[in-house]
Amino acid sequence: MPSPTDARIDIDRFWQTIERSAEIGVGRPGGLARLAASDADGEVRDQFVAWCREAGLSVRVDGIGNIFARRAGTDAALPPVVMGSHLDTQFNGGRFDGVAGVLAGLEVVRTLDTLGHVTRRPIEVVNWTNEEGARFSPPMVGSGAFIGAYGLEWARGRTDEDGRTLGEELARIGYPGEMETAPHAFDAYYEFHIEQGPILDREGVQVGVVTGGFPSTGMLIEFRGETAHTGPWPMERRRNALIAGARFLVAVDDLGWVHAGTGGKATAARLVAWPNKPGILSDWAQAVGDVRHPDPATSAVMAEAMRRAAFEAAAKADCAVEVLDVWRWGGAIFAQELIDQVRGHATALGYRHRDILSQAGHDAYYIARHAPTTMIFCPCKGGITHNNAELCTREDMEPGLNVLLRSVVERANR
Amino acid sequence: MPSPTDARIDIDRFWQTIERSAEIGVGRPGGLARLAASDADGEVRDQFVAWCREAGLSVRVDGIGNIFARRAGTDAALPPVVMGSHLDTQFNGGRFDGVAGVLAGLEVVRTLDTLGHVTRRPIEVVNWTNEEGARFSPPMVGSGAFIGAYGLEWARGRTDEDGRTLGEELARIGYPGEMETAPHAFDAYYEFHIEQGPILDREGVQVGVVTGGFPSTGMLIEFRGETAHTGPWPMERRRNALIAGARFLVAVDDLGWVHAGTGGKATAARLVAWPNKPGILSDWAQAVGDVRHPDPATSAVMAEAMRRAAFEAAAKADCAVEVLDVWRWGGAIFAQELIDQVRGHATALGYRHRDILSQAGHDAYYIARHAPTTMIFCPCKGGITHNNAELCTREDMEPGLNVLLRSVVERANR
Repeated sequence: MPSPTDARIDIDRFWQTIERSAEIGVGRPGGLARLAASDADGEVRDQFVAWCREAGLSVRVDGIGNIFARRAGTDAALPPVVMGSHLDTQFNGGRFDGVAGVLAGLEVVRTLDTLGHVTRRPIEVVNWTNEEGARFSPPMVGSGAFIGAYGLEWARGRTDEDGRTLGEELARIGYPGEMETAPHAFDAYYEFHIEQGPILDREGVQVGVVTGGFPSTGMLIEFRGETAHTGPWPMERRRNALIAGARFLVAVDDLGWVHAGTGGKATAARLVAWPNKPGILSDWAQAVGDVRHPDPATSAVMAEAMRRAAFEAAAKADCAVEVLDVWRWGGAIFAQELIDQVRGHATALGYRHRDILSQAGHDAYYIARHAPTTMIFCPCKGGITHNNAELCTREDMEPGLNVLLRSVVERANR
Repeated sequence: MPSPTDARIDIDRFWQTIERSAEIGVGRPGGLARLAASDADGEVRDQFVAWCREAGLSVRVDGIGNIFARRAGTDAALPPVVMGSHLDTQFNGGRFDGVAGVLAGLEVVRTLDTLGHVTRRPIEVVNWTNEEGARFSPPMVGSGAFIGAYGLEWARGRTDEDGRTLGEELARIGYPGEMETAPHAFDAYYEFHIEQGPILDREGVQVGVVTGGFPSTGMLIEFRGETAHTGPWPMERRRNALIAGARFLVAVDDLGWVHAGTGGKATAARLVAWPNKPGILSDWAQAVGDVRHPDPATSAVMAEAMRRAAFEAAAKADCAVEVLDVWRWGGAIFAQELIDQVRGHATALGYRHRDILSQAGHDAYYIARHAPTTMIFCPCKGGITHNNAELCTREDMEPGLNVLLRSVVERANR
């Protein structure tokens, strides 16, 4: 039997969990539509908890439905080393985004069981609630509430488009929460994740050592106009909130093109309006935009330009405008000691690796405010994600999983 | 008792019907949300039919739910003189748009009953199904199906956003249709309507003699792209259908501004996308635009520019594009003899009147293909319509109603 420092994860065993997960909440062919606190989310949580209990882990659920599964260490007084991500997906999501990070934690625990090794510190595997934000806005609400960025009642009160609250829906699927959401201490937090971008795949790199995230800003903008007939109403009296929203989206997209050459992105992701019907001008619209750039100063310039675009769009359409919410994430938020540790194990294992910035938001961004944190990326085909064509092979994942295992065991035995 | 040629409608009696109608399908304060084939539409139809039966009219319903209420003439072999409009409203509709035209027909019949006068030709009052198109697209589907512009099964198969068909919903509210939809002959068709524009009110004109409609073109455009993550996915690989739709809407709005100085309007009225969520690019969007201009050649130029804008928007967002539907209406479609007749009665009655083009679509546009047709407009405050603040007074309506009465009686005694 190898010593824990030489251990490798069992990719076949890991892959079986991925395949079982991919049976729950099936979406478009090959993909998942496993929205937070849906029946499918309940089913995959039940499966995850069953796996955890089979592995001898003690399972607790906090007030926002985050699931913590703990493997005891030899010193129960020490805070745990934690791994995790999220089991929920987008409407047109893949089988790996988030899911792989939770099941990676389970695989690390199972590997230690196979070895018969008990670490000094406890180890925890966590599933964060509603990372995607596809059903309940904002995204990453579970990890955000855990660290206190959101109040628990506010987070539980988030509503979906049918007016159901996250709290009610968590109770309905059996995850109402039995522990306080006040954060318990973490010794460290590691999140294994698919890159969700094309860089590792294109370069043939096996492990992404995540050094931070693109500084990013998102905004929820509301426009208010006035209904009127689409025919006779003079152009100069129109206050079409839908057009204010559309002008905002176009301005955000243009901003992305201005900064595309230096790696910037700007996304116009959502526009809703009321009544939004032929024959009548809309008196209400909400739009979501976000901007991301690897350079913090440029990212800030883009954020300010996005805000200005909202006011210009409103002025052009003679609508009132309100910035309802602004969220920022990314930057140099990860712990240098963990980044260096991950890079060291990737090197020692002989994997092709590179430093990389995350361009997406992750639960790790919130947890980085609470404990030393880092992420490990694996390649995904063509960088395709948030799409049923999202694809990783065992070969894509095995190196990152072994780096995760080595890093967690080393940290937990510190 | 005055002779029928001197008759006047009873504005108090008319107003009671308007007020009773305004109790059914109440929307925002002062307005109606009486969508086609909804429970409220069923209730107002029942009330209308009850009124018609009280007035001794024979009521028939065709296969698309259009209600025809006939008052016999002395010569049953002659085709009827028909008046009507629609009892359905927008989501945020007013109490007068359409409603006034149906109830005006009822008031003309009641006035003839009071006079004890029977015309030579029969007189019919009609309520056309789903004029607004707010719940089932396209608008004016009842009058369109009546004249054969749409097949009956196609029209009955139009679905709302919950997937319910117009045919099923008409049956559910008790108007499944008991007669064929093949059009019976009309001697003439008169539609009384609020102007839905600011001209008559601003100029202090009491009666609008409608000489035709703004030549208008509407288009339903579909864009297809690809979902992807809003963060890492490079700008140059994005195929965000929502952005294609937004660019189309902005281009349509810009077109309206280009032609605003000569009376043109262009409207970006509707945009839906999927998944239309933060965090994911949308792979599907549909948008509706329409252009209107009093000059036919300019209107055609605007329509072509709108079509081109759809393709340019799609190209910019690297999406596929399809023009799913094009609808055209307006032009010099009304019968000169009826226009002259209406103008003559307005003059004889001493009302301030003017010729005017309709800028909105109306059932009269379809019926004009079937029989000599015209419209009579009354002013509405500030031109506000498709809004709960839509407002007409008795004084706004009485002149037009009397012109309608005189015109219909004269025509029916011809």
